[in-house]
Amino acid sequence: MSALLTDLYELTMAAGYFETGKKEERATFELSVRRLPKDRNFIVVAGLPQAVDYLLNLKFEAGEIDYLRGLPQFRNASPEFFDYLRGFRFTGDLFAVPEGTPLFTGEPILTIRAPIIEAQIPETYLLSSVTFQSLVATKAARMVEVSGGRDVVEFGTRRAHTPEAGVLGARAAFVGGCAGTSNTLAGYRFGIPVVGTAAHSWVMSFSSETESFRRMQKLMGKQSVHLVDTYDTLEGTRKAIELGQPFWGIRLDSGDFLSLSKQARAMLDAAGLQQAKIMVSGDLDEYRIRELVKDGAPIDAFGVGTELATSGDAPSMGAIYKMVEIENNSGTQPLKRFTAKRSADKASVPGAKQIFRFEDHDLLALSGECAGGAKALQQPVILGGKLIQPLPGVRQARERAATMLAELPADVRSLERNDSFPVHQSAALAALVKQIGKS
Amino acid sequence: MSALLTDLYELTMAAGYFETGKKEERATFELSVRRLPKDRNFIVVAGLPQAVDYLLNLKFEAGEIDYLRGLPQFRNASPEFFDYLRGFRFTGDLFAVPEGTPLFTGEPILTIRAPIIEAQIPETYLLSSVTFQSLVATKAARMVEVSGGRDVVEFGTRRAHTPEAGVLGARAAFVGGCAGTSNTLAGYRFGIPVVGTAAHSWVMSFSSETESFRRMQKLMGKQSVHLVDTYDTLEGTRKAIELGQPFWGIRLDSGDFLSLSKQARAMLDAAGLQQAKIMVSGDLDEYRIRELVKDGAPIDAFGVGTELATSGDAPSMGAIYKMVEIENNSGTQPLKRFTAKRSADKASVPGAKQIFRFEDHDLLALSGECAGGAKALQQPVILGGKLIQPLPGVRQARERAATMLAELPADVRSLERNDSFPVHQSAALAALVKQIGKS
Repeated sequence: MSALLTDLYELTMAAGYFETGKKEERATFELSVRRLPKDRNFIVVAGLPQAVDYLLNLKFEAGEIDYLRGLPQFRNASPEFFDYLRGFRFTGDLFAVPEGTPLFTGEPILTIRAPIIEAQIPETYLLSSVTFQSLVATKAARMVEVSGGRDVVEFGTRRAHTPEAGVLGARAAFVGGCAGTSNTLAGYRFGIPVVGTAAHSWVMSFSSETESFRRMQKLMGKQSVHLVDTYDTLEGTRKAIELGQPFWGIRLDSGDFLSLSKQARAMLDAAGLQQAKIMVSGDLDEYRIRELVKDGAPIDAFGVGTELATSGDAPSMGAIYKMVEIENNSGTQPLKRFTAKRSADKASVPGAKQIFRFEDHDLLALSGECAGGAKALQQPVILGGKLIQPLPGVRQARERAATMLAELPADVRSLERNDSFPVHQSAALAALVKQIGKS
Repeated sequence: MSALLTDLYELTMAAGYFETGKKEERATFELSVRRLPKDRNFIVVAGLPQAVDYLLNLKFEAGEIDYLRGLPQFRNASPEFFDYLRGFRFTGDLFAVPEGTPLFTGEPILTIRAPIIEAQIPETYLLSSVTFQSLVATKAARMVEVSGGRDVVEFGTRRAHTPEAGVLGARAAFVGGCAGTSNTLAGYRFGIPVVGTAAHSWVMSFSSETESFRRMQKLMGKQSVHLVDTYDTLEGTRKAIELGQPFWGIRLDSGDFLSLSKQARAMLDAAGLQQAKIMVSGDLDEYRIRELVKDGAPIDAFGVGTELATSGDAPSMGAIYKMVEIENNSGTQPLKRFTAKRSADKASVPGAKQIFRFEDHDLLALSGECAGGAKALQQPVILGGKLIQPLPGVRQARERAATMLAELPADVRSLERNDSFPVHQSAALAALVKQIGKS
């Protein structure tokens, strides 16, 4: 895992920390969400395995070190610094909330405690891995919430920001509650159910639509989903019906889904094909799904691409990775400072923290504090550079998300913004914030 | 390059084409933009090297084939199909417009002509690679257009949809006209200029802001960019000035950029530091840049993260990959059909096409046609599975973008939507569209 996959300033700071004799200082950084994305009341955390994999495998190749040596920003760096990079590894600690946990503003998704250079360099990679996947898991959870129990399947790789983002997005969507994905590699790597049968090109490759359905059905039997809108949706439906069972059902990919699904359902039922299902795909998001469900559209599954794979209405979130403590143990007396940024509108909260979940609120406390009657959400993951136990798998993460979302007040799961689940600060944390703000 | 990194339906269709004896049929698919993203008048094409690399290295590993064999969708596929996958390679042709070319609605970014299975499987990967990178290159071009000649630098990896998307996004932003990136791996891999000095954590790691600046300056000399807003922007500026030259300048990362940049400029000038520059970063997009430039903000460089790395206001675009022709050469008489989708609002245009650029419009013609006085934009890249010559590098792509954008009417480069650059169909193409629409 290339340690160059980071912002240059992480590496110039690394050189700075090294040259100013700070490399033995231990810093604590927290990755948290400063502002929830538009209309979101929570985020569902995802992406932890990629973060862990990165920390466990982080290093500089010889060619990469030579590259840095040649940059003007490193002209005054010492030979010892480049020697140090050669042996660079992550030897610190990672604490994190498990994948699938719903979190709120200001709560640390993960905490790194390590010699300052090892804590600084991962900033960029960790932010990118965890926020993207959490955005997708969150978006999926919103869709599943309003789907009235019908399946939501992820079809978005072609819209993802690189194909690999499609694989990780498919995984995140599954964590958030999707029933499956069209991404075959995500199925292979993570054991997620994969779905999909044919595109318009299949239909067009035959001289008649009926022939294309017949051939598909011969191959895929009751797995067949006939895509009926290449030329005319209801005409296509009629042709699928003529072939008779067994097929899974039909897919509508354009037009007015409410009206077409009702007409197609009536045609299927009239032909005695009550078991045949209807899937729709094309320009769906959580609002459109809610509307179709509310209007009683007889749809059995929603295939969602763009809006899931890119978290279309909120493709980024204001997550930060901020130093909250720094310790210097080199003197006779250990020296610990709490740190915070006071920039206009961008102040950060000092001190390593723990999150306690109560029924109707969270308590953000200093990491040493206890709180009766509540679950502590952050757990140790890596200690001294070693993974302490295998991470939960994607199915466990998905179950955790479902369970923990169900335990939240219903308002929190609404598509519209509200503040029904407050995050309070413990007395000790509030006192620290006040003290640091004054210093 | 795993051939499983695609939608499952590409692979079930592959099985279908195989089992129905169509695998020798040659299909032509075009990847084009059905709708330009919001407010865009053009897209700058980027991402071709990733697409080419994929096509040249595409294959199925043994474990991947076993995985497919176990899926219910492939229950009826023959042993011969899985044998075929073992030897699967891309042996077809790729035609494409070079990276950096500005394109318009309906124009093929790339065209694949290959045995139908080889043409079908790449759909998902090609769409994801090319559309994401084109979105970022386009966004960059919009920012550079209104920057009044000041540098726009790309700082967005932490917001990118996975760290690897950050690397490719940094490259695309450079193609679109950015001056550099903070992504170090993009610098190492592609030779793009890298920039960056320090974050707030650097300042906070010292007990005083002045000490943090002094130490940075000692290491980085005139490369130093002092981040002055950790505690108070103007107070931070004063501390940087006290240290005196040499330093590159200061960076403002929060607050009112217009007012703060004017005050900081006055302070720097009053101290005789006319050479010291001002960079701003934080929540910038093309509209904000245009406003700051128009208001005369004394800003020398804009650092842009989120909006560039995710193409924030348009994180996806309606690109399609559609079959336009299919040929069957197995009989005594070669048989060629033109294909198109007629779905409501989603009709596609049949026939392999060429794009001709005139001064004030494009002409979309059938691939065999000629047009006097215009440049043909699509060029062969891969023939018979072999790359015919090395692709142009990222600097050439960047120059092409700058030159070709400058040649377009000024209106086209405006941030607001207009239709000043029409795309016409040739008479032959129009006739074909009419004919297929009726069939």
